[in-house]
Amino acid sequence: MLRICVDMDEVMADTLAEHLRRYNQAFDEQVTPEDLVGKGLWEVAPADRQKELRAFLDAEDFFEVLDVIPGSQEVLEELSKRFEIFIATQAMTVPNSLGPKYRWLQRHFAFIPPQHYVFCGNKSILRADYLIDDLPRNLERFTGQGLLYTAPHNLTATGHARVNNWLEVQTYFDHVQG
Amino acid sequence: MLRICVDMDEVMADTLAEHLRRYNQAFDEQVTPEDLVGKGLWEVAPADRQKELRAFLDAEDFFEVLDVIPGSQEVLEELSKRFEIFIATQAMTVPNSLGPKYRWLQRHFAFIPPQHYVFCGNKSILRADYLIDDLPRNLERFTGQGLLYTAPHNLTATGHARVNNWLEVQTYFDHVQG
Repeated sequence: MLRICVDMDEVMADTLAEHLRRYNQAFDEQVTPEDLVGKGLWEVAPADRQKELRAFLDAEDFFEVLDVIPGSQEVLEELSKRFEIFIATQAMTVPNSLGPKYRWLQRHFAFIPPQHYVFCGNKSILRADYLIDDLPRNLERFTGQGLLYTAPHNLTATGHARVNNWLEVQTYFDHVQG
Repeated sequence: MLRICVDMDEVMADTLAEHLRRYNQAFDEQVTPEDLVGKGLWEVAPADRQKELRAFLDAEDFFEVLDVIPGSQEVLEELSKRFEIFIATQAMTVPNSLGPKYRWLQRHFAFIPPQHYVFCGNKSILRADYLIDDLPRNLERFTGQGLLYTAPHNLTATGHARVNNWLEVQTYFDHVQG
């Protein structure tokens, strides 16, 4: 059975929406995802707000309250019948996210066993056939087939097979023997 | 550069000593590692104590206070000059251990970057050349070369290359081109 690794932030969980919500509220701003084509919030926010930007992520409740990216539950539940699904998330730069990410996965993706969660840093450690991820550098380190999941910050990236939403993920794997 | 994955419990951290300490104290027993040749504490403890045995592991402070297995720091620091060292620990069955394990690693193995921590379940996910682990089933799922790190419970296991202590780990890798 082929194995698919799936990244959490910006692929299963709408991390950007919550980050923007907290940023806009704290600084009375109205930054939208459309303002972030080809770049991260870090690049748009002034230097004297970088500390707060980081503090939002470190908050104990941040990763617990994220919205689910539409379609991810339905498509992953379907794919889990034909493929081995592992969740591979970068959690080590924000250690406070470890517990919240675990609980978020249990709540929203109960059909994936915790034994298939991988909390890691460098994704070159993953032994899998596919990786769905929004970060080009993660795909570059990965040895299997990478799929770049579209997010505002990666809209200008080239050189990777791209999926724009979960319907496209489903269509992609319709043509793959599990 | 070749990559070595290293398990934490019973390889870097003396999990058994702390588990025995709490068990013996709670039940006024004197079980020693020597009583556990070829089996786990789970198999020695009576049925009506299994819940407490598990509760010891779930305690927030358990994984934070473990002693370091002698030699692991020195040998890993040496090996990290010639090999890529990743820490690969089963943390998903005890989610309370996620934060404590992270902090324990930072405190005792500061020379290994958090980007090289992997908190996982099924170790077949690891892409590495070597895995040092005390659990035969982890080595069986691993696709590289496994090294069984001796612990009381695995003394009767056969079929794996075995290292009895960290000096033997060092000697083993003396003969490997990094």
